Amino acid sequence: MLACSLRAAARAAPLNRAPTLAKRLTASPRRTMAAAAAAAAPSVKQDYDALCKKLKEVSALSGINGLLGWDEMVQLPPNAVNARAAQKAALAGVLHEKQTEAEIGQLLQRLQAANLEAEGLNEFERATVREAARDYRKLTAVPKELAQREAELESQGYQAWARLVDPSRPVYDILLDDYEKGVTAARLDEIFGQVKAGLVPLLADLRARGKAPSDAWLKGDYDTKKQAELCHKIAVALGFSLDSGRLDVSVHPFTGGAHPTDVRMTTRFKQEDLTEGITGAIHETGHALYEQGRNLEYDGLPVNQALGMGVHESQSLLWERMGSSEMLLLLSYLLPLMRKHFPQLPKEQTPEDLYAALNIIKEPSMIRVESDEVTYPLHIILRYELEKALVEGSIEVKDLPRLWNEKMKEYLGCEPESDARGVLQDVHWSAGLFGYFPTYSLGAMYATQIFKAAEKELPGLADDIAAGKFERLKGWLNEKIHKVGSLPTSGDELMVAVTGAPLQPQVFLDYLKDKYPALYQL
Amino acid sequence: MLACSLRAAARAAPLNRAPTLAKRLTASPRRTMAAAAAAAAPSVKQDYDALCKKLKEVSALSGINGLLGWDEMVQLPPNAVNARAAQKAALAGVLHEKQTEAEIGQLLQRLQAANLEAEGLNEFERATVREAARDYRKLTAVPKELAQREAELESQGYQAWARLVDPSRPVYDILLDDYEKGVTAARLDEIFGQVKAGLVPLLADLRARGKAPSDAWLKGDYDTKKQAELCHKIAVALGFSLDSGRLDVSVHPFTGGAHPTDVRMTTRFKQEDLTEGITGAIHETGHALYEQGRNLEYDGLPVNQALGMGVHESQSLLWERMGSSEMLLLLSYLLPLMRKHFPQLPKEQTPEDLYAALNIIKEPSMIRVESDEVTYPLHIILRYELEKALVEGSIEVKDLPRLWNEKMKEYLGCEPESDARGVLQDVHWSAGLFGYFPTYSLGAMYATQIFKAAEKELPGLADDIAAGKFERLKGWLNEKIHKVGSLPTSGDELMVAVTGAPLQPQVFLDYLKDKYPALYQL
Repeated sequence: MLACSLRAAARAAPLNRAPTLAKRLTASPRRTMAAAAAAAAPSVKQDYDALCKKLKEVSALSGINGLLGWDEMVQLPPNAVNARAAQKAALAGVLHEKQTEAEIGQLLQRLQAANLEAEGLNEFERATVREAARDYRKLTAVPKELAQREAELESQGYQAWARLVDPSRPVYDILLDDYEKGVTAARLDEIFGQVKAGLVPLLADLRARGKAPSDAWLKGDYDTKKQAELCHKIAVALGFSLDSGRLDVSVHPFTGGAHPTDVRMTTRFKQEDLTEGITGAIHETGHALYEQGRNLEYDGLPVNQALGMGVHESQSLLWERMGSSEMLLLLSYLLPLMRKHFPQLPKEQTPEDLYAALNIIKEPSMIRVESDEVTYPLHIILRYELEKALVEGSIEVKDLPRLWNEKMKEYLGCEPESDARGVLQDVHWSAGLFGYFPTYSLGAMYATQIFKAAEKELPGLADDIAAGKFERLKGWLNEKIHKVGSLPTSGDELMVAVTGAPLQPQVFLDYLKDKYPALYQL
Repeated sequence: MLACSLRAAARAAPLNRAPTLAKRLTASPRRTMAAAAAAAAPSVKQDYDALCKKLKEVSALSGINGLLGWDEMVQLPPNAVNARAAQKAALAGVLHEKQTEAEIGQLLQRLQAANLEAEGLNEFERATVREAARDYRKLTAVPKELAQREAELESQGYQAWARLVDPSRPVYDILLDDYEKGVTAARLDEIFGQVKAGLVPLLADLRARGKAPSDAWLKGDYDTKKQAELCHKIAVALGFSLDSGRLDVSVHPFTGGAHPTDVRMTTRFKQEDLTEGITGAIHETGHALYEQGRNLEYDGLPVNQALGMGVHESQSLLWERMGSSEMLLLLSYLLPLMRKHFPQLPKEQTPEDLYAALNIIKEPSMIRVESDEVTYPLHIILRYELEKALVEGSIEVKDLPRLWNEKMKEYLGCEPESDARGVLQDVHWSAGLFGYFPTYSLGAMYATQIFKAAEKELPGLADDIAAGKFERLKGWLNEKIHKVGSLPTSGDELMVAVTGAPLQPQVFLDYLKDKYPALYQL
């Protein structure tokens, strides 16, 4: 269901290990044993091709999984829920079997023993072997039984699993790696420490002395069909291709699908709120552009997978937020479009008013998914600190409600009136998703740093945005981010390649410290 | 894509042959060899359960295949065509592997050697073993290589395949069996001979002396969105459950989907023709009611498969045609509905006029899919005679155009001006589908005989229909046809159970001889 789970597929044929008729006819029955042995030892190229064939088959089956997920969200008949669960379980079983086939292990073993560069494999091909080995090691470390227990006992199973993958590394690092390749708790401590130190006083200052903007003028009654039409136009203007995907409506907006040529993006609309649908559509379009921008040359191979949830999220937040001045220009392009579809919008408000209305800090900020750009990272840091301590064993589940409330008070200056609006507000932990939360804020930080690099490399970008022209920005992101997929081994490595430096939390903090005091008239 | 390819699925979990933790904990390590041997020999019940688990997994994967097909027809983004082909190929490979697993063969061997009735298996369970063995034998008779060549060289591959399945039976019988279980060429010769002898003179007489009804009053301009709304209402009125399926629009109408609880039915509409959409919707609803009426108690097992294409077609034609007098009553219910949606329909025409307009014999009748109830069976008989001769080797492909035209003249009184409107008009033969055509006309004949039985068993049926109440007829069909699935081994066996006699072509001929001379004022 998440964009990140969408893997590429290719023109893979069903596996057929038997020799073809043509091959059998040309093979001489009288060849010597030596010749037979020589013929039996496959070349690196043959091994690589055989591996790719298997990986592309897995990729195609994963694509089907993506379609099943989209279909379930958008249009599944209510009585079909159980049948769909059975179908997904059957496909999951097949995927597991295919991904853990012994032959893949043998191919990988031989390929990893060879000098791939000397054998003429390019960097994408070498990364394909590397990533395939990484996936295979993760999957085969888990006995099938345990994988099934894991599904039953999500939280415990997940930790037990992680210990088996690599007993030499901290469990939480292994959990993190599943959502954001290459990131460690040590690196997150560094990043989040810096962010917390910058944000807590900024938030306190804004609340103490700032004057919150108003969004009262935006309240109204907006036909959801018209909203859908408008957002359809915006998504296409930003670069979403209707030849390679569909736009639909679902209760929970998401971007999924079966293939880069078959990206299914959904949005939702509220009758009383015009901006939620629009910002949601821009956000999901960012995810969808990542998916549609995949490198079809390495279609269906692991090198072509998204680098991680954080990088994926950076692509949605980049379009949703841009830089402050560019966002204003984007809104100067969008506001007339909004007025065209909804003539009831008051005439006197400017793009600056819209920008201010979209950036109001929540007071209090209790619920993560309803929060804002400034308080959001603090919600994440709170969860990061708690889940890491939980996995490391330094706190227990029963301590969570108390610790949650203490940290809320300290970081966000408010305490939930009940656990329902506190520690129980997210589904992640109960679903066994530990190590997932940090990627949301990593995404926001990547986005700011990437956008700054785009500003430098694309002269005239501001004029483009004001004119509603997004091809160059999209093309640049395609080249720099989408097409490189998992060629880098971590977000930091990608940042170095794209922006010249690893992730720098200070860039994100500077952006907030520049933007919010101005909006709050400090 | 065809309704018949839709198989049931169940709450199947991914296969796990390893003992569960609980089982391992209770097994004593000190048991004797004899006890171990006894424990190792599975009971008939255990074998049956193990078989069902495997069959339900296959069924769930087949369901996914149905969804992929529907999605491709209804909403696939254009660029995704290749990716979808790869996904379907990968799934087809997996299905073939799962269906031909050696363990299924071993389970079937043990089960077939046992006295299943004495072991307490009921008739549905015994039929499950029988049908599973039938499928397994068919599939494993085909080496994988040949299955792949078959896909490449459809027509030749298909015949070669058939010879391998059972060298002792005529090739054409084995082809037929794939579309309509248990029917043979000898039986078809008998049935079609009788039909041809009755229809050719009836058609000649109607043409020579009859007065064709008019449908000129129906020509007009009908908004297709309104047509879709009307047909949606009709489908629901007949009993289509929107909780267990969807109604959509596609270029070629079909009924498919992923499961009896997830039936995807599509229709198409022409701006200038109101009745084509309505009759198409009624037809497809008949197929969909069969699918939604499957026996969920044997969900995912072969006993629950549709008996054949002919029986499936009987369910669509039964609703589309009923008996003459009941069809008039159905139209007396539908005409006011049509007028409500399309006030431009002239006021003076009666249900009788509509009935006459829907039953005009084509003049000339050159194209099968555009033909009518009287000439349609002759189109089928022509194809049956030619394809049987082709498969038996008594004629050659190069003779087909000449023989086609000769038979057209003899049976239908007209000759095509080109092969495009003659021997090349259908896609079936070029796609390797031999033995498929006869099922269309078997369906029409089954329908008439089944409806006559319903008339007898459901007093007041005519009143129900006139009042737009279809629950009793649908419920009766559910019980008599849909829920028994493949419990009988042939259409004749089903007809005996439902109507008291095997298929009687005379019932169909009597229906036509009663209906058309009246409509044509003879």
